[in-house]
Amino acid sequence: MPEFLTLLPPDDARTLLLSHLSKPIIDSESIAVTSSLGRFTASDIFAPHPLPDFPRTTVDGYAVRAKDTFGASDSLPAYLNLIGEVPMGDSPSFEIESGQCALIHTGGMLPKGADAVVMLEYTQHIVGAGSPRSEIEIFKSVADGENLIRIGEDVAQGQLVIPKGTLIRPAEIGGLMALGFTAIHAAKKPRVGLLSTGDEVIDPSQTPRYGQVRDINSYTLGALVEKTGGEAIRYGIFSDSFQVLQEAAAKALSECDVIIITAGSSASTRDMTAEVIRTLGEPGVLVHGINTRPGKPTILGVCYGKAVIGLPGNPVSALVNGYLFVVPVIEKLLGALPKPKSTVMAKLTVNLPSQAGREDWWPVKLLPSPKGRGQGEGLSADPIFGKSNLIFTLASADGLLRIHPDATGLSAGEIVEVMLI
Amino acid sequence: MPEFLTLLPPDDARTLLLSHLSKPIIDSESIAVTSSLGRFTASDIFAPHPLPDFPRTTVDGYAVRAKDTFGASDSLPAYLNLIGEVPMGDSPSFEIESGQCALIHTGGMLPKGADAVVMLEYTQHIVGAGSPRSEIEIFKSVADGENLIRIGEDVAQGQLVIPKGTLIRPAEIGGLMALGFTAIHAAKKPRVGLLSTGDEVIDPSQTPRYGQVRDINSYTLGALVEKTGGEAIRYGIFSDSFQVLQEAAAKALSECDVIIITAGSSASTRDMTAEVIRTLGEPGVLVHGINTRPGKPTILGVCYGKAVIGLPGNPVSALVNGYLFVVPVIEKLLGALPKPKSTVMAKLTVNLPSQAGREDWWPVKLLPSPKGRGQGEGLSADPIFGKSNLIFTLASADGLLRIHPDATGLSAGEIVEVMLI
Repeated sequence: MPEFLTLLPPDDARTLLLSHLSKPIIDSESIAVTSSLGRFTASDIFAPHPLPDFPRTTVDGYAVRAKDTFGASDSLPAYLNLIGEVPMGDSPSFEIESGQCALIHTGGMLPKGADAVVMLEYTQHIVGAGSPRSEIEIFKSVADGENLIRIGEDVAQGQLVIPKGTLIRPAEIGGLMALGFTAIHAAKKPRVGLLSTGDEVIDPSQTPRYGQVRDINSYTLGALVEKTGGEAIRYGIFSDSFQVLQEAAAKALSECDVIIITAGSSASTRDMTAEVIRTLGEPGVLVHGINTRPGKPTILGVCYGKAVIGLPGNPVSALVNGYLFVVPVIEKLLGALPKPKSTVMAKLTVNLPSQAGREDWWPVKLLPSPKGRGQGEGLSADPIFGKSNLIFTLASADGLLRIHPDATGLSAGEIVEVMLI
Repeated sequence: MPEFLTLLPPDDARTLLLSHLSKPIIDSESIAVTSSLGRFTASDIFAPHPLPDFPRTTVDGYAVRAKDTFGASDSLPAYLNLIGEVPMGDSPSFEIESGQCALIHTGGMLPKGADAVVMLEYTQHIVGAGSPRSEIEIFKSVADGENLIRIGEDVAQGQLVIPKGTLIRPAEIGGLMALGFTAIHAAKKPRVGLLSTGDEVIDPSQTPRYGQVRDINSYTLGALVEKTGGEAIRYGIFSDSFQVLQEAAAKALSECDVIIITAGSSASTRDMTAEVIRTLGEPGVLVHGINTRPGKPTILGVCYGKAVIGLPGNPVSALVNGYLFVVPVIEKLLGALPKPKSTVMAKLTVNLPSQAGREDWWPVKLLPSPKGRGQGEGLSADPIFGKSNLIFTLASADGLLRIHPDATGLSAGEIVEVMLI
């Protein structure tokens, strides 16, 4: 008879698991900023110099002393002597004195003496008849600092610009480049060992006999690990033998930061996974059984500070529970700062039943709905029905709809939150 | 004087650009499924065999003929003769006849003659005293097909399982592996050539003199291209010379599927970019000026069927407009099926002004807000103020908040949609 499970709510189970991973155990490594997309910073990054480190104009126009323009209007322009043009990419060789101005292009360095820029649109260039002097008519006053970026206005020297645990996106790459960083310290990718068990499971490249099925879980979970920022190491498929699995798991645990065992689907092998985890190190199994669908038989353990997760053999259950438990473990090891999750709001198309106390995750298809563009009005969420073992229910889903444990279902027309997968 | 721009709404501008890219021009290539995460399928994929291709049980229990259990209850159990155990990973060597049953484990192949499985929990094993026969007491009736997955219930043979243009996620990898695919045809990564211009722009590895700034745009846009599924090719930085830029752009256009020129920030070089695009091929510049902030001077062109995009030198403007225009071009070249975008709902913390007719994109920080968990109640969106040229306004933002062109602003407390970046 199968072991009877005491089911924990998924949020509690996750909290318990993470609390045993007291701190990131992952080292850092130096990587080129050009290869850093999707990695996480392993240390705080401070600005080595202010940005910009010279005052720049944000418009095309004339660099002026603001007070020379006070009161200027269409009917009563101010007149300033044009003394030169600011070269792009260099410091101006002149200073602006009272009554003077210089032509300047967006991004150009403000000459000394100037404290504002008048946009070209509010000026007129007059070449005086019989006079070698060039004069500029100014039709609008500017305030001190107008149309400028001051030194340090983007970041000050020494400022914390990118905290430890930041996911590197295109914008961070820009910030790093602006400050002259070509390499950074990034968290090493956590090594996640994947073991499949089950006498019925064969390598996907083989042709199954009747009764056999191809290994899906090593590959779906491997892809999820990589997507999250980890490195997936597939150890292969092990028969339903305690000793074989125990030895393989012990080896994987010594080589990896996390291990995941996807159980053969029978009750005996599920229980074997828990037994194996108990032998791998203290404290061992923390949670065996989670009040969620799919994923009830999930096992969460920690052995010598490393997470060891037993997932059901059912490929949908394994992958959904990978999103719920493996992703947060990898994020914790990476030292990742909390980030808003990718979710969309959508209108549910049908009633969905659920059991109070249990958290359900339904695969849904998101379809544009013609009406309105209010919140969740632009999309409809169409649940994909099918037994939870059917991998193509997930492959055709855009996301997973969560039904809270305290709900007994959701009604057609409700606006629901869908986690994109 | 700068060219006066006729501003197009961003949605219209994008539609016009994409309409000139009549069909994907990208070839496909064969890649291993294990390296396919984040790629796009280049052809429809059909199931070569049904899945599963044998009837499997979804529970641990006894394989039976359903009608033998009809009427069974706690008080009036049915009694069936146990004739064997289904081996995992093999076809059973026996058939179930009326009055018989066999032990079966989750995932096991249903023996011939059986048409349902009774869960272990509703049975009792009796070894008859003085009799060699084993009998199973059944306390609950099952319907024909109960606790089974039938042949083809996941997918039927020949069924379209993954359409052309599908983004490969972990779930697709699972589906492909389940069907024995180890390689697929994927769209080649569109080659996107990146050119920076500006006499003031230097390579990020160099130390700027006063007046110089490091090249940010080649790197932020390069990262965005890679994140979207393209290949970024950086051609470097070119001086503000028509001939130099024209030659470089023509070379890049011949080698790439898309080119992006980030203009030097002065009006003269912006206009030069448009002039260069006009010489590269028909129809040339389609849009010069978009009614959006940031990004007004964006140029959208097509030359000989390839998109040529001129982005402002301002790094925030370049990256935001990269999200708005470069991403959809790459997705079109990949033949990507439309997907729901990653957005979150959040409560705006302050009033935000906007100009009617103009679409604004504000960088915002998303913070968990303690109250409620209704839509958008769990997060607050805090706009990051700063001139649009400051790259760290984006590097510290979680997303971009869109203000519709027909709005004159948004009020504090409104629930807003934020595109995650």
